[in-house]
Amino acid sequence: MDYKVVALAGGVGGAKLAHGLYQALEPDHLSVIVNIGDDFVYYGLNISPDLDTVCYNLAGMAHRTNGWGLDEDSNRAMEQARRLGGDDWFILGDRDLGTHLVRTQQLNSGKTLSMVTRDFCSRWGIRANIIPMSDDQVHTKVLTKQGQSMDFQEYFVHQKCEPEVKGFHFEGLKEAAPAPGIDKIIHDSDLVVICPSNPWVSINPILSLQPIKEALMGKPVIAVSPLIGGNAVKGPLSKMYMELGIIPSCQAVSNHYRGIIKGMLIDQVDNHEKEAIEAFGIITYATDLLMNNDDDRKRLAVEALNFGKSLSIIP
Amino acid sequence: MDYKVVALAGGVGGAKLAHGLYQALEPDHLSVIVNIGDDFVYYGLNISPDLDTVCYNLAGMAHRTNGWGLDEDSNRAMEQARRLGGDDWFILGDRDLGTHLVRTQQLNSGKTLSMVTRDFCSRWGIRANIIPMSDDQVHTKVLTKQGQSMDFQEYFVHQKCEPEVKGFHFEGLKEAAPAPGIDKIIHDSDLVVICPSNPWVSINPILSLQPIKEALMGKPVIAVSPLIGGNAVKGPLSKMYMELGIIPSCQAVSNHYRGIIKGMLIDQVDNHEKEAIEAFGIITYATDLLMNNDDDRKRLAVEALNFGKSLSIIP
Repeated sequence: MDYKVVALAGGVGGAKLAHGLYQALEPDHLSVIVNIGDDFVYYGLNISPDLDTVCYNLAGMAHRTNGWGLDEDSNRAMEQARRLGGDDWFILGDRDLGTHLVRTQQLNSGKTLSMVTRDFCSRWGIRANIIPMSDDQVHTKVLTKQGQSMDFQEYFVHQKCEPEVKGFHFEGLKEAAPAPGIDKIIHDSDLVVICPSNPWVSINPILSLQPIKEALMGKPVIAVSPLIGGNAVKGPLSKMYMELGIIPSCQAVSNHYRGIIKGMLIDQVDNHEKEAIEAFGIITYATDLLMNNDDDRKRLAVEALNFGKSLSIIP
Repeated sequence: MDYKVVALAGGVGGAKLAHGLYQALEPDHLSVIVNIGDDFVYYGLNISPDLDTVCYNLAGMAHRTNGWGLDEDSNRAMEQARRLGGDDWFILGDRDLGTHLVRTQQLNSGKTLSMVTRDFCSRWGIRANIIPMSDDQVHTKVLTKQGQSMDFQEYFVHQKCEPEVKGFHFEGLKEAAPAPGIDKIIHDSDLVVICPSNPWVSINPILSLQPIKEALMGKPVIAVSPLIGGNAVKGPLSKMYMELGIIPSCQAVSNHYRGIIKGMLIDQVDNHEKEAIEAFGIITYATDLLMNNDDDRKRLAVEALNFGKSLSIIP
């Protein structure tokens, strides 16, 4: 297919569908705008987990089962660090460390995150346009019921999503601008796909950038539900909804994206939610959302593209 | 043997003899004061090559042939960094990286280099007291005939010692103090051994700290020649002497340490230099200085200890 698609993506589920779109489209017709709210500094290194997960997946280098890191990597550096009493709550593989070392060096030399990402993609042979939502710093903070404002990775990895959440805050967002080119990429696109990523912490940071939200107005935007039967394939989304007093459902997700999306892909097991979602003016398409392998990713991407096409007039 | 020994050490040769002394003595009766002039920042990480070489050797973890780094290490991080266009002129092995990650984190958290080194030694099971010459920053600069003032690792590793040298400068030395405890360690010692390290760039930074030089006055100090037949086993010492207009010889080394040392171990092939060195008031002892294995290291250490004992009255 040859139309131009912009995907919004965060963690593992988003990276999987981005990879499916990359297989289904002319590779240079895909742009992926990636969440940076999860980015953090660890051992003095700038870690961009969502960018790396998208890039590693598109380059065919992602770890097959972890959902993060590189395939066939080793953990010698972290084993030594642990032996010396260093932090080991966030595991950096040895090859993965090479990515963070060079990214950190290049950012410290004055390059922007989007410049570094473009350079890395070129070296990894990725022909899609992977772009961080912003070259400015945005830090997702998890507000807990214990009254704390916690760094995202502290919540997500170190504390294994155990604290009860009562909200989220994106530090730095007001001062942040979209990365250069994002406005034009969205303007030139034929379809925008919100990947099956966590709406609260993966997609909301992107949509909270006002210029991005405005650019999406009037564009054909569809979302793929990150919940199947009320459960996330990976991650704390279902738990978050419950802690926020919302029943985890496709309807809850669609409510999240109301006013932005025209259509939504849901799993067949959630077909009973069709009417409730369509009451929001959002057309649904039910299929099998689970992506167990590369073929699933491509198949779901093709279905999303066809569904998107059916909702919009594409030249 | 149960007397207390302080060794001054820099690179590979120094680490080998320090390891020999560690085998020959009660392990906690050995202190090693280590050069930090070679320390540098690479990829934002604090690298202390001489400290690591000494520690890795004493812990039995040193690479068997390289003279630097850890045995049985891999280079996955650096391979990825190279692929991404990052620097690769100084190779950091994967396990070795763990050391630098934790050291950097601990220094950034406010610990001193001697605190970090003591902690690492304890975790590595090293019972000797390994202590950096200073907790302040001292940077060896190589002055070249092309008029440049070059960082030591730039000269030593990146440019493979190719530039011609005309002198050395130790940046920060005037403001630097010896690490806490060094004065007492020297005061309490029965013998001080200057290891077969490069006098210009490994030992001079240590001896240029005035309080250390003063503490050595009146102590029985011996040196082991880093040259055998005018050649260094490893490193640019012979080339340096020639570029500085000095014939590389044990006599040149002894002249370097004149006024500080009472005795000097030289190789049997240099026995013809005996008289010239003794004319400086330095007693010589000729033996086989080459350390090809652990047994050689211990044998040479025992000879140095016996020679030192013969020169001094030890209680």
